[in-house]
Amino acid sequence: MSDEVVLDLAEAEALAMRACLAAGAGEATARSLVDATLSAAIYGPAVLGFPHMVDYLDSFREGRINGDPTPTRARPYPAFFAADADRGIAQLGFDLAFDDLVAAARNFGLAVFTQTNSYTTGELGYYVRRLAGEGIVGIAATNANAMVVAKAGGPAVYSTNPMAFGFPLGEGALPLIIDQASSATAYVNIVAAAAEGRAILQGWAVDETGKDTQDAARALGGALLPFGGRKGANVALMVEMLSAGLSGGPWSLDTPSFREGSASPAVGLTIIAMMPGRTGDGLVERARRQADRLQSLGVFVPGVSVSGIDYPRPATEGLKVPRAVFEAVVKIAGA
Amino acid sequence: MSDEVVLDLAEAEALAMRACLAAGAGEATARSLVDATLSAAIYGPAVLGFPHMVDYLDSFREGRINGDPTPTRARPYPAFFAADADRGIAQLGFDLAFDDLVAAARNFGLAVFTQTNSYTTGELGYYVRRLAGEGIVGIAATNANAMVVAKAGGPAVYSTNPMAFGFPLGEGALPLIIDQASSATAYVNIVAAAAEGRAILQGWAVDETGKDTQDAARALGGALLPFGGRKGANVALMVEMLSAGLSGGPWSLDTPSFREGSASPAVGLTIIAMMPGRTGDGLVERARRQADRLQSLGVFVPGVSVSGIDYPRPATEGLKVPRAVFEAVVKIAGA
Repeated sequence: MSDEVVLDLAEAEALAMRACLAAGAGEATARSLVDATLSAAIYGPAVLGFPHMVDYLDSFREGRINGDPTPTRARPYPAFFAADADRGIAQLGFDLAFDDLVAAARNFGLAVFTQTNSYTTGELGYYVRRLAGEGIVGIAATNANAMVVAKAGGPAVYSTNPMAFGFPLGEGALPLIIDQASSATAYVNIVAAAAEGRAILQGWAVDETGKDTQDAARALGGALLPFGGRKGANVALMVEMLSAGLSGGPWSLDTPSFREGSASPAVGLTIIAMMPGRTGDGLVERARRQADRLQSLGVFVPGVSVSGIDYPRPATEGLKVPRAVFEAVVKIAGA
Repeated sequence: MSDEVVLDLAEAEALAMRACLAAGAGEATARSLVDATLSAAIYGPAVLGFPHMVDYLDSFREGRINGDPTPTRARPYPAFFAADADRGIAQLGFDLAFDDLVAAARNFGLAVFTQTNSYTTGELGYYVRRLAGEGIVGIAATNANAMVVAKAGGPAVYSTNPMAFGFPLGEGALPLIIDQASSATAYVNIVAAAAEGRAILQGWAVDETGKDTQDAARALGGALLPFGGRKGANVALMVEMLSAGLSGGPWSLDTPSFREGSASPAVGLTIIAMMPGRTGDGLVERARRQADRLQSLGVFVPGVSVSGIDYPRPATEGLKVPRAVFEAVVKIAGA
């Protein structure tokens, strides 16, 4: 028996909708989450598609997500949106603001969306990919519960604090999309290594005493290290100030886990949307030529470069979902 | 004889003005450059104060800077400024736009300044420190000539591509200022190690064949590595797209050296200026408390934390300038 199930897009969408609704999500929340899930499954890291949706389904049922929230949105300045997700999913607040955000960027040249009080954002690249689809440059930052130290020996003070950046490359071209954590690796890689008894790379994590370790089991009781030492820690600090600082959302130190308990992580999210000059400036076409040129020189251009997988995954081949994930979703969907 | 000269602020300012004017700078250019030089000398890395001013003085005289430019500025959108520095210094174009940029950020919630066709920007932290002084959050990105590879084995495709971030922390408090290159180290550190016959750290540079090296002399013929591997290379790419991509300035691959020849590097600069919410939101005070809290947990908060030096350097103690730099400036000033 294959450990993957292949679903066509319509099947996958229908199943995901049923599962969200069955787990307690309202119609609007389910729609927003399914859109983001399919986008991650097709264009993003596959693990942030259906596998991560299971975290959402669990969190609907365990009270960490308000499945039927009433998000609110203030506009303290003409190009500045400040939203409160009412403990719902981040994607819903973003969807409700999207048309206004895009219109403001087109009117004023740029605009910013901040949001607090949401569940963790899922694939951060999704938000800037949506903007890139409108021909808009995006910068996004978010945080969650603390699990990354600023340096070995210190306490965990940041979440994996990801930052995403999107630059549209024109009609028919995939946009440049950078989406990366400020940590040296993802927590799931520590979990996987510990489960398999493998050592982890030096520079990934510290043990419970704050010392650099390659022992995955001890790292589980410790914390992650930032990528690139002091400079990576500064990136994490910038992300913290952009996400929590600008939105008024909780600092990583004050954020409950998105996987346990019944409290919403209630996190912050900040997204800057900028026009790539005026259409006549040709900056998008110019960037596309540069992305081609960099690739011809062997540079990996995230979002654009092929990395051993077809990218985006061709719809005709269907979406591959790990069997355990598929079965968990089906069980919740009651299908 | 001490190898440092101590100047009081008024002396330093007068000397710097005379030197700039003698080197061919017009009054407005000299004023902008001296302001930035003193700011770097007091608040920034000292090496970007008077020592770096010598690069400017040489470049005025050797034609890499237009000392009396006519910068122009378009406003394609109400909150989007697109400047052309006319091969002058970046600081002049910024100074001319500053009041409008600040007013636009206050009116619309955020604004962006892009500039092309300038000499390299000097201390990038200066620009966001200026905005922080107005209570405004800033993100800045710029590039220069290619000297950093995306990965070992590839050609140099990026400059050290620095990014700066500033967050105001309220009345009487220094702002949080991050200002860091996307390279693992600064080129001057390779030069210094080679001059002294020292080895460099692994991960700093590659040799002329593209292989990782710890031999400083061979690194001089090679290129720098990005900090933090693939993720640092992505930061460099983001900076490239923000600085050159959004401003229309030259890609690092197409930028002449700022230290040789008679061509302007003509580089790009992009600065985003954002309000930290409305005054009543208290986000600045909240960020200040968090900066204090992080410091109490041992986290180095750039711009705020003391790092073995008094910071800012107290004006009463005067500015310490390396004697060789002082003598070079005096010689040009004709004083």
